[in-house]
Order: sequence, then C-alpha cells, then structure tokens
Amino acid sequence: MTQDGPDIRRLFRPRSVAVIGASHNESKIGHKILSNIVSGGYEGRIYPVNPKGGEILGIEVARSMDEVEADIDLVCTCVPAKFAYDAVMGAGERGAAFNLVITSGFSEVGNIEDEKRIADCAREHGMRLLGPNIFGMFSAASSIDATFGPGGIRHGGVAIITQSGALGLAMIGKTAVESVGISAIVSVGNKVDVDEADLVTYLMEDDITDVIFMYIEGVRNGDRLVEVLKTATRKKPVIVIKSGRSKRGAVAAASHTGSLAGSDAVFDAVMRQCGVLRAESVKEAFNLCKLLPEISIPKGENTVIITNGGGIGVLATDACEKFDVKLYDDLETLREVFDPATPDFGSTKNPIDLTGGATSKDYTCALDAALAHDDIAAVIALYCETAVFDADNLAEMIKDNTEKYRRAGKPIVFSVFGGRVAEQGQATLTKEGVPVFGDVYETVSCLGGVYSYRRYLSNWTDTIHEEDIDVPAIEAVIREARADGRRFLLAQEGRDVMRATGIPLPETRVSRTLDEAVAIAEEIGYPIVMKIVSRDILHKSDVGGVALDLENRDEIIDAYQAIMRNCRASVPDARIQGIQVSEMAPAGVELIVGARRDAAFGPIIMFGMGGIYVEVLKDISFRAVPLNRAEALEMMKEIRAYPLLLGVRGEERKDIESVLDAIIRLSTVIRRCEGISDIEINPLMAYEQGQGAKAVDVRILLSDVAGGEADA
Amino acid sequence: MTQDGPDIRRLFRPRSVAVIGASHNESKIGHKILSNIVSGGYEGRIYPVNPKGGEILGIEVARSMDEVEADIDLVCTCVPAKFAYDAVMGAGERGAAFNLVITSGFSEVGNIEDEKRIADCAREHGMRLLGPNIFGMFSAASSIDATFGPGGIRHGGVAIITQSGALGLAMIGKTAVESVGISAIVSVGNKVDVDEADLVTYLMEDDITDVIFMYIEGVRNGDRLVEVLKTATRKKPVIVIKSGRSKRGAVAAASHTGSLAGSDAVFDAVMRQCGVLRAESVKEAFNLCKLLPEISIPKGENTVIITNGGGIGVLATDACEKFDVKLYDDLETLREVFDPATPDFGSTKNPIDLTGGATSKDYTCALDAALAHDDIAAVIALYCETAVFDADNLAEMIKDNTEKYRRAGKPIVFSVFGGRVAEQGQATLTKEGVPVFGDVYETVSCLGGVYSYRRYLSNWTDTIHEEDIDVPAIEAVIREARADGRRFLLAQEGRDVMRATGIPLPETRVSRTLDEAVAIAEEIGYPIVMKIVSRDILHKSDVGGVALDLENRDEIIDAYQAIMRNCRASVPDARIQGIQVSEMAPAGVELIVGARRDAAFGPIIMFGMGGIYVEVLKDISFRAVPLNRAEALEMMKEIRAYPLLLGVRGEERKDIESVLDAIIRLSTVIRRCEGISDIEINPLMAYEQGQGAKAVDVRILLSDVAGGEADA
Repeated sequence: MTQDGPDIRRLFRPRSVAVIGASHNESKIGHKILSNIVSGGYEGRIYPVNPKGGEILGIEVARSMDEVEADIDLVCTCVPAKFAYDAVMGAGERGAAFNLVITSGFSEVGNIEDEKRIADCAREHGMRLLGPNIFGMFSAASSIDATFGPGGIRHGGVAIITQSGALGLAMIGKTAVESVGISAIVSVGNKVDVDEADLVTYLMEDDITDVIFMYIEGVRNGDRLVEVLKTATRKKPVIVIKSGRSKRGAVAAASHTGSLAGSDAVFDAVMRQCGVLRAESVKEAFNLCKLLPEISIPKGENTVIITNGGGIGVLATDACEKFDVKLYDDLETLREVFDPATPDFGSTKNPIDLTGGATSKDYTCALDAALAHDDIAAVIALYCETAVFDADNLAEMIKDNTEKYRRAGKPIVFSVFGGRVAEQGQATLTKEGVPVFGDVYETVSCLGGVYSYRRYLSNWTDTIHEEDIDVPAIEAVIREARADGRRFLLAQEGRDVMRATGIPLPETRVSRTLDEAVAIAEEIGYPIVMKIVSRDILHKSDVGGVALDLENRDEIIDAYQAIMRNCRASVPDARIQGIQVSEMAPAGVELIVGARRDAAFGPIIMFGMGGIYVEVLKDISFRAVPLNRAEALEMMKEIRAYPLLLGVRGEERKDIESVLDAIIRLSTVIRRCEGISDIEINPLMAYEQGQGAKAVDVRILLSDVAGGEADA
Repeated sequence: MTQDGPDIRRLFRPRSVAVIGASHNESKIGHKILSNIVSGGYEGRIYPVNPKGGEILGIEVARSMDEVEADIDLVCTCVPAKFAYDAVMGAGERGAAFNLVITSGFSEVGNIEDEKRIADCAREHGMRLLGPNIFGMFSAASSIDATFGPGGIRHGGVAIITQSGALGLAMIGKTAVESVGISAIVSVGNKVDVDEADLVTYLMEDDITDVIFMYIEGVRNGDRLVEVLKTATRKKPVIVIKSGRSKRGAVAAASHTGSLAGSDAVFDAVMRQCGVLRAESVKEAFNLCKLLPEISIPKGENTVIITNGGGIGVLATDACEKFDVKLYDDLETLREVFDPATPDFGSTKNPIDLTGGATSKDYTCALDAALAHDDIAAVIALYCETAVFDADNLAEMIKDNTEKYRRAGKPIVFSVFGGRVAEQGQATLTKEGVPVFGDVYETVSCLGGVYSYRRYLSNWTDTIHEEDIDVPAIEAVIREARADGRRFLLAQEGRDVMRATGIPLPETRVSRTLDEAVAIAEEIGYPIVMKIVSRDILHKSDVGGVALDLENRDEIIDAYQAIMRNCRASVPDARIQGIQVSEMAPAGVELIVGARRDAAFGPIIMFGMGGIYVEVLKDISFRAVPLNRAEALEMMKEIRAYPLLLGVRGEERKDIESVLDAIIRLSTVIRRCEGISDIEINPLMAYEQGQGAKAVDVRILLSDVAGGEADA
C-alpha cells in the first residue's frame, strides 16, 4: 500500500506553504490558519490564495495558485466543499507536495463520490493528501501551526495523530494547560490518502519526537499499520486510544472464528503484539505522554515505593499488583540501603515508610540512596500532605530529584496527595513540565505502562516463524473447488489442505469394497470410524451413514453392510463413492486454532480451547500474522484455561510444541494462500507431551472472487 | 457485639469537650487540636487539661480531670503513650462519654498489652473509646474540629471514616481544594472499641449526612458491619476503599473453599451484596463524593449523551458499555425531542451531537428538552473546548442546568475537556461546589456507580431465606465426632448432616451380609457402587475395597465377595462393619457449594463449578449469610460458566431451583450450627430441570473448641 510520492519530510519541514481560501474575515477558518502560521513563528514562505487578492495580515494574497511562484511543499485547502475539487486540482497542477484538505462535507456526511474525486485528482498529480475534514497540522521542526486551533502550542517531544477533529483541537488546549510539549500534531480525518502508517513511518525516525500518541476511530490497511508499528515501538513508545470499542466492527463473520472476533478484541491483541500501549481514557494517555519523554525505560524489574504515609503506601502496593509493577523484596538489602534514611518508627520494608515526620531533606536522602543502588530499577515516590513538611520545598525537591534520576537513567514517578500544599506543588511542577501525579492509582498505572513497554522491548525479536508447506498442492485444491462453483472446501479437500500444511490428521482412506475396508482398517489399527462418502448425502449420521468405535474385523464387516443398507434405504438415488475408514482419534484436550483475514488487520490467527471454553466463556486470543513461536506461545498463555495444557490435577503436560507447530503452520497457510479466507481446526486434539496433536476436523472457506483471481 | 453505653449522638454533638494533654507549645498536637476546636467555631464548653495549669488560647487550663466541673461528653487524649492509661482512667472516673485517644504507640507498633489495658479501663467505666492512634474527629453538627489537621473544613454532606491517619489528614486538605463539603470525619485507627459499624449506625440516620465514605484497611466483626451496611445503604450511598487487597487475609484456609477465598474476593462480594460502592482509587471515591450529594438517583435506565464533539461522544459511548450505563435508543423519540435543538449536521441519535458550533444556549436548549422528557432518566453532558463557544458562559450554563436538574430530581453529569476555557470553567465550578469532571471516562464511571446503586435499591428486599433443617440431629452428629476426638466428620456422618439439612443424596445403605447387599441393590436399582466400611481401612480403593458401576445381581454377588476377599487379604486385622451399597449418581453438571466462617465476615457461602472451573479458572463467587434466593441466584449468575446451567449447545436447562435450594439449606446450616466451621459439597451434581440435584460428596470440618462448647 505504500505510495510513491514526495518525501514525507516536506510535510513536517515545509519550505513553503500556500493557504487556498485564506480569508480576510477573522472569524473564518481560512483566516485563522493563516494567522496561526504567521504567529506560530514559521520561517518559510507563506502564500495566501484568494480570488479577491489584496493583503491579509500584511502578506500579499495570490489570486490563484498560478500566481504563486515558488515550489509549494504544503497547501492548506480551506475552501467550501463545492470548490474543493478545483482547489485540489489547482494545487496539483502547480506541483504541490502535500495538501491539507481542511474542508469538510465529504464521506463523513455520506458524500463519498466527491471525496473519491479529489483523492483521485491528487493521486494523478503525485500530490499527497491529508484529510479531508481535518483541522490541519502542527510541526515543531519548522514551527508551523497550520491548524485553526487555539495556537500557542508548547514545543516538546510528543507527536499526536488524531482522527477526531474536535477532540484533537481540545487536546491542543489541554497540552497547553498541562504543559505537554508537542513535536507534531496531525489531524487525519477521513484518511483518503495519508494515514497513521505514513505518519508513524516519519515520526519514528524523527529526532525531536520521543513519544507517539494516536487517537484512532477506525483502521484501514491494518496489516501495514502493524508492520510500521512493530518497527516504531522499538525506537520509541507509541500510545493508542481506539474509540468505538463497544461497536462490533464490520467483520465478515464467516466462520466460527470470525463471529467470535469482536474487532476490538483483535485490535487489542494486535496492539499488544506490536508493543503499543493502549490507553483506555484520554487522561491515561496524557499521563503517559507527560511521563514517557521525561524518564528512561527501567533497566530491571525491582521497584521501590518511598512514602511518608502508610495508607497511600498500601494503596500503591495494591496498584503495583494490579498494574504488574514488581516490588523489590530483598529485605536485607532494603534495610541496608534505607536504614540511614528512615526514622525509628518508619519501615525499610517495601514500601519504605519515612513516616509523617519526613521533610524534603529526608525524601532526598532516601531517594539518593535508591538512586545509588544498582539493584533498584525504579522508584515510586509518594507524598501525603502533612503539617510538618517544609511545604515551600516540595516542588523544588521533586524537580531536583526528577532531574537527578533523569540524568542517571533511572525512572521515578511522583505522586502528591493533599490540600493546598499538594495542589500548589503540582501546579508549579506542571507549569515547568515536571511530571507529577495526584492519584496514587494513576501514578502506578503509568509506571505499569512503562514496564509493559520495557518487557515488550526485552522480549522483542525480529524472528518470524514459517514452516514449509506445499502451497501448489493447496492452490490446486482451491482451484478445483472454485471450478466446482464452491466457496468452501469439502471434508476430503480440507484434509488434503491439512496434509499439504503438514498438520497431522487421524489416518483416513476411502474404501470401495468391503474387502478394501477391512484391509484399510487392519492397516490403520482399531478403533475405527466409518462414514459414507457421497455428495448426495449431507447429514450422514441422520441416515445411519456413520459407525463409531469399531473394535475388530467383524464389527467392520457388520458396519460396512449396515451403512450401505441404511444409505440405500434412505437415499435410494444417492451416488455412493465408497466408505471412509478412519483412525478414531483418541480423546485429548480439545483446542481450536483458526486463521482468517480480518477486515482491518489482514491475516490474523486465533487460539482457544474447544467446546464451551470458546463458545460460553469467550476464552480466546488473537495475533496478527506473521508471528514467531514466542508470540504464538504468548497467545496460548493468554487464555485462562492455559493451565489445562500444562497439566492439572495430576494430568501430564500436553504436547504444547505440537500445538505451536500447528499454529505456525496455519499462520503460514493464511499468509501464503490468498485463496483461503477462513480456516478453522476444531478440534485440534492435543495429546500428552511427545504424543503430538491431530486436526480432527477442519473447515475452510475461500476468499471472494478478487482473492480467488489473485490466487489463480 | 453492640456495646451498651452512652448515646453516640454525644460523640457527634458533644456539649462539652476536654483536651487532656492540651499544650502551651504551638507545635504540639495537644495545642493544635485545642486550637482547631476553638477556631472551628465550636460553641460547647472547652476544657484544656494539663498539670501545668495556666491559660492556653485564652482558656483556663484545668490541672486534672478532677478540676473539670461539667459532665464531659468528649475527651481528646493527647498525652504520650506512657501516660495514656492514667489519662483514660481519669476521664473514665469523671464519667466522660467518649474518648478520642489520639496517642499512638500501641498495637500498631506491637504494644498490644497497653492497648488492651486502656480498652478494658474504658469499658469498665462505661466510656466509649476511639482509637488509639488517630488524628481525632470533626463533626459539622456542632462545628467541632477536634483533629490536628489543617482546619478550615467546609461543611457539607459527606461523612468520612478513615482507618489511615496520614491519608485522612491529607483528605481533609483535599476536600478543601476540591470543595467537598463534610458532615463528619472520624479517624478510627486501631479500633479497640468504636468501629465503622458504630459510626455508620449513627451516620445513616444523620440528617446532614448525604453520603458515607470509608477508607478501610482491615475488618473485624464483619458480620455486624454487613448488617449495619445493609440498613445504611437503603438510606444513603456508602462508598468504600479497602486497601491491602493484594495481601491474602489471614483466612483460616481449612477447606478447599477457604484456600480459594482470598479475603479480597470475599470483601468485594460482600460489599456488593450490601449495596456498597467500592472505589478502587481515592480519585474515584472523591468523584462519587462530589457527585452523589448533588444529584438524585435516576428513576429509570435511559441515559442520553449530549455532546459538541463526535470523538468524545464515542469515547463516552464506549465507557457507558463498560460501566453499564444504558443508552436510550428509541430513535424516533430522540429525534422528536432533540430535533429542535440540533443543527443540520448534528445528530439526534444518542449521543446527541450539537456539533462544534454549539453555544451555551444550544446546550441549554438540548438539556431543557432532555429534562422535560419523562423517558429520559439521566444525562451525560460533554463539552469539548472549541473556539466558537461563548467561553464566559460555560460555568454559568453548567451551574444553572445542574441546579435545574437537581430541583427536578433528574441526575446530570458534566464533563469538560480542553485548554484554558475548560480549566477555568472547571476551577470556577469546583470552587462553588458544582460537580464537574475532566475525563469522559471518569465521568461515565461515576454515573455507572450511581446506576449500580440504583439497581441495588430497586432489587432490594428484606427477605431472608432459610429452610427447615434438623439442627438437633446435626448437633448430635457433631457431639459424637467431638467425643471421638475428631475435628472432622466421617463420610457417613457427613451424609447424616446432609439428610438433616434436606439436601438430596445418592441413596446409600450398609449391608452386613451378601443377601442384605443384594436386597438393598435390588431396592435402590442399578447401577450400584459398593464400598467397604471399616475404620481400619482408610484408602478403600487401594486395597480393592470399592466396586463401581455394578449392573445386576450377579455383579453384586461377585463384587461383594471380591471386596471382602481383597480387604481381608490386605488388612487381615481390619474390623469390617459391612459393605456400603449406594446408588451410582448419574452424571450431571458438577457444582461446588461451600459454606464457612470467614475470619472477617463470619458465615459466608461460595458457589462454583466443579473440576477445573474452580481450581484452574478461579470461577467462583461468594455471599455473606444470611441471604435470600435472589441473592443466591445473583451469586450463581456471577460465575462465567453460568450459561452451562442454562443449557448450551442443545443441552437442557439444569435444575437451577434445586441448586438454589441447596445453597439456601447450606447457608442455614452454617448460620444455625455453630459447631461447623466448614462444609463443602463437591460435587453437587445438578440434573436437568425437574430432576433435582444431589450431593455426591461432602466434607465437613468442626469449629475449634470455643465453637464446640457454644454448641454443646
């Protein structure tokens, strides 16, 4: 999906900008944007364009793009929707590189046709288009505020990409009052061309951007976004809010897998797989945006809580368990480190309780000790307002220690709770851009986010696992089914695909005669299952066309004759190809492994336990494809019933490696065989360690015609 | 546990107060408390007590309690720990009603003995004691601030009870900056006498208290607290933060049930059963404390979101699903109601989108329409900062509408997100005590709390269900086991208890002869299970003392002889009482129902599904006893596997009524038979509707000696 075109750096560092629809009227967006560009300190060339000509804000106005002499890196299109096509055409013809189409009134109100026209027009001219229906963009790299927002954006390390205009504008205001420094803000709106993946590709390499924060309402081309995010998160943290999580996405719920895959569950799993921090609320996202640019990623897991109040210490301890922050518990070392800093009635156990009598000096003393000790990887410092504390020093103490920790590369988070002193301290620190939190719970949640990012980085590997599968054989099966006018595979075809994929099956052959059936059964070994093979008989059990658990030669003979008799009696005209003679797979742990093409994320894979676990308990996990064995194992461990595979109540461990192998092979199929849209093994029977796993039943659906053609 | 003694109103409305240890030194607690009492506007008589005499803050100091003439309702004891006993004794002898023992240095540092001494002393004198180790108390009813906190407490409707001193003091500061009005704050500290139950008993009847907020670290006499809370929540909302949730409580994990019952899971379930709103963070609790006194409880479930931004509208919609706030979805009515208030590009679907162009007038217009319509029960009003909004009117608009809604008894929550305008609006409103939130997520979470309270009240009933059980028969069994020196019941005794409880069992009798065995089997019907009965044979299966699935007379005869032969061969000296002949319970859905005495909450009952559901998936629920059938059904529905009882995959609904009956009967046993400490039916086999449920196995443990004596 990557589009050739101008270098995206020209978007973030434009040498020239034209505002088409620049207005003399101060209340108009076309004025506000120009005014923000001017007052924002942009040093490139600025060209207001308006057929009326004249001057706006002391800048001469071009009557049309033709009058603009320079090469234009960035155009802001602020004209009404009915003039938008001409404006885009004009900019395209002048060779503009990027066009921010601020104008609204397109697909968001159902006007898809005009949106497509301007998109096509831009593409034809090799011009990249943002929007339409956006508020513009800000880039600190060239001090350009080409938005109609409130202005006065503080420069810093956070890049924001937002799909919501109103929320994005309000965020600009919020970053100002919260002193969150911004490297870029881009409104992506209807995303007809430039999308999050394009922007993240630039921002991840951008030196002034420390953190990327995205507000997403819907994902298109999710597989490309996944690829970009996987690279980006290794360079810097990425935070995402995805709204609309309560709405079921428009997933083509063709298979069992599909119908279970609420798109939000998939989004969530895929973001985790990419190392993205998903925030539930704007508050949570802002907390991370404030903290992450100011701290280092911890070098280990040992966290210490330093507090002057027992109560908030306990609350923080609870929160640490909830948000998976590990508390350092080497009591002897803790005593050695903190004894000199802790009064008699305090505690050197973690939380370190400096008691209500602690002054700013006491805090600094304890924090210095924690900073100096290499085994301590991170510190949570809590201040509960007391009367004895030297209130005037609170902000200074926090600022100094934050700075010391920052220089030393050890993360620290401060929480301050109380009345006036706490409030004033927080206000002072916020103004200076020093991260400090109110609620203990939020504080720890934030550090928990940092730790989950750390763990992602530590476990990261660029390995992708695929297995050798016989793609031509699978494609041949698909072609045959398509020739037959089917969008699904028959049981026998499904088994052929499994064989070509290298996933073990219960042994099965079709017999044409009684003698053949007996011979096959003797070869496979008992117990045996027999089934009628006839395209004219769909519900085989209903007509007595199935016999289970056959233990010997005599039972095979009886069953063969009974099946033939039953089927001929029930469906006299049925064309019978023979009787299938199969190994009866012994009972094991029933699993479901599925793969399908998600509308947003492309190929994904799912895992769960068979029977009620998936259907009733919704105990299911997802990953984007491709993946490696470690990711596949993580996916398995995510389900609540995972301990059943490890063996509980005296049972043996199951053959987890064989299940992993099946997952990797299925991910290879969905990736390599575009003709397949859905594939579900249910059950995949897992046996004890060393005994493997077998695909007892498989359902395969084919892609629609386009996919089929691609595959032909 | 209720203690006779002075009327608790004398604590909250004392006519006189003595400060023992009142100090001339301004830095001392004994000075600060006196000064807070004086400056807080208390109008009763104040008696500083200090052997040095003289005057403090212009008040004459008594040298001892003997010098104090008046009857003393309230004493504040601020002396060092070593003088505390004498001070308490002095106050007791003078007939003081309540004593706030501020002094620390008792059980919190391991000094249990002295704590017990002062507690005993107070009790002997009929004086109620708060603490020790507290910061005092504030009561708006008599304007008394007997704390050493920052003073300047704003009067209002929130009562706070806190077990943590430091956190409580910081909360006083926080209530001031957040303009949360307070009716009372009580520090309970080590709780040797007065505890939460005593205080809630008063506060629930207190006219000026609208909401009760408790910070709890540990619960003693939980059964009394449960009783009080059940009454209190019908009168006003109660919010609880329970810290230390990550620590396993000191639950005597004697049985399977016990070992699973992390005390926090029990606490959580019991609070929900009492209609208490449990907050996870102080922030969440404060949000509820701000909102609840200012709004009415909604009269219905239909909520409407009114917004000027699509993005925050979607975020709020997501949050509504998460926090179980139901969005009104009668699109036609919505259109009728909101069409006049919504511009062309807006939406009258819920969320109602007034668009970014909305002014304060537009908001009021839409809010008036929502207020006027009876089907709309609650409103979430979101404001996303825009340039066009008449910012100066924001606070006024919110204040006016809040007031209108308050008068009309319809709840409304406002969320304001953005920059300076939003911040200033919020600051103005907070100062005036008008509840307004920043984050959309927190806003909806808060309304979700209100709704969960509403639902509790709507479903509330004072019914308690018990069943007739044969207590004397059960007590006889217990006596016999105790006489035998056992703290557990044998299988046969367990079955006797089940019979006395009225819970069906597989039919079972003991045969002494082969003929008798055959006769019993014929009477019970096949299949049959047989087991050796001998106290000398513990592991019956190991010695061949068990035979399963016996289908006819011949198999009974063979099995009888085989069991006898096997047992005599393996344990030649065994005294054999006979062979037990039992109905083999058919397979059903395996459930676990247990009851035990929780260290904190007294008798509780648990429910889960047998096998891996409880052990591996921890799918388990709890309730305090007594309970009614509706509560028991709620407990059943709470487990994730509940749909299995309703019937999935074509299976029939199970006999849920019989399971409910077993739960009620077991709750009756644990309530009526103090001699039993743990009882667990595992499995309780549930059959199809109308087929009942059977206790296949039961384990019963007896209470320790004290319980045994009570029971004898």
